[in-house]
Amino acid sequence: MEPTRVGVIGSGQVGRALAAGFAAHGHEVTIGTRDPAANEELQAWAAQHDGVAIGTFAAAAEGGELVVLATRGTAVEEAIRTAGTQHFAGKLVIDATNPLDLSGGGPALAVGHTDSGGEIVQRALPESRVVKAFNTVNAGLMVDPGLPGGPHPMFIAGNDEPAKATVGELLADFGWTAVDVGPIERARELESLVILWVAIGQRRGAWDHAFTLVTPA
Amino acid sequence: MEPTRVGVIGSGQVGRALAAGFAAHGHEVTIGTRDPAANEELQAWAAQHDGVAIGTFAAAAEGGELVVLATRGTAVEEAIRTAGTQHFAGKLVIDATNPLDLSGGGPALAVGHTDSGGEIVQRALPESRVVKAFNTVNAGLMVDPGLPGGPHPMFIAGNDEPAKATVGELLADFGWTAVDVGPIERARELESLVILWVAIGQRRGAWDHAFTLVTPA
Repeated sequence: MEPTRVGVIGSGQVGRALAAGFAAHGHEVTIGTRDPAANEELQAWAAQHDGVAIGTFAAAAEGGELVVLATRGTAVEEAIRTAGTQHFAGKLVIDATNPLDLSGGGPALAVGHTDSGGEIVQRALPESRVVKAFNTVNAGLMVDPGLPGGPHPMFIAGNDEPAKATVGELLADFGWTAVDVGPIERARELESLVILWVAIGQRRGAWDHAFTLVTPA
Repeated sequence: MEPTRVGVIGSGQVGRALAAGFAAHGHEVTIGTRDPAANEELQAWAAQHDGVAIGTFAAAAEGGELVVLATRGTAVEEAIRTAGTQHFAGKLVIDATNPLDLSGGGPALAVGHTDSGGEIVQRALPESRVVKAFNTVNAGLMVDPGLPGGPHPMFIAGNDEPAKATVGELLADFGWTAVDVGPIERARELESLVILWVAIGQRRGAWDHAFTLVTPA
């Protein structure tokens, strides 16, 4: 993908992994956080990552030609409002979130199977081309995963074919093969996949696993 | 797993693959169909598979020490009633079904994300130990898949730990490594997985892919 100005909404583990990955691949990144001046820990992190600036949610969204949503899934609607919905209009938005409900004994999806976080985002941003991506793998694997036998598939979903083609180029840069699973409604299943991922991690006691595909030799 | 009498409810592609697989591994199988005398095509199939007898749903369920549900997912409740719910009491029941709604443009889950086919089966059979298994792979791969780099994980879910341990032994026999993803509620995600599987197949134009896990070298 051509060098692009990228805004990352959310500065947790996922946001940082994506921000650093975009920067390492030559993109100009602003990582958005609610109160940049107060977030000294994020400042220290960003100082170690060339090409990553810190800004408000609004600055990250407004400045980015491409915007990545990397907040908690249950916080994403409010984060979009905080960033300013108008700042997403006409742009490619990558939704890397999962609407996890962690209030019970195990993780569950906070929205029903007749809907998904990806669809909610697409409805909240009717003028944007939302592609669900990155939500099915560990933050540590999102960019240049170094998995044996790769590149491995990254499953993506969205309604706009050119947008998905662009994300496919990006994923190739990042060491993945994009596998388009269909329209944004398929976010329901991409989000379900992470429930399995968590359950497997709980059994493994380790979190560096990713789903891939295998076919007969 | 020790040689066991197995009843398979459903004689479609999945039921046949499992019936033949159980038989090939030394188990005594009855494959259940609604009207055995009328199903000449199934009779011809069974004649080619030593160790597989044909019976009614009731005969398969009653005679099996272990019963496998392999009907269409949307037909499974009615199939259980036809077989006789009492014939499942106290037994290990493997639910290999997916409640797919194929009436729309693409596959969807016929029941909401607050429920799953696996849970419906477990509620319909409160005296049985239901394990969701086999529902995430192609019928042709269910037994001795011959996938490179194997054995690969087969994801399973259920509420009864010894039942899952038994299914784990079975899966080892069948060339898989069981990966227990938790209680039967996790059938929601195992069933979602097949939606992705179908979407990927539609893009590939081929159906011999399976999900597996990869970790860094």
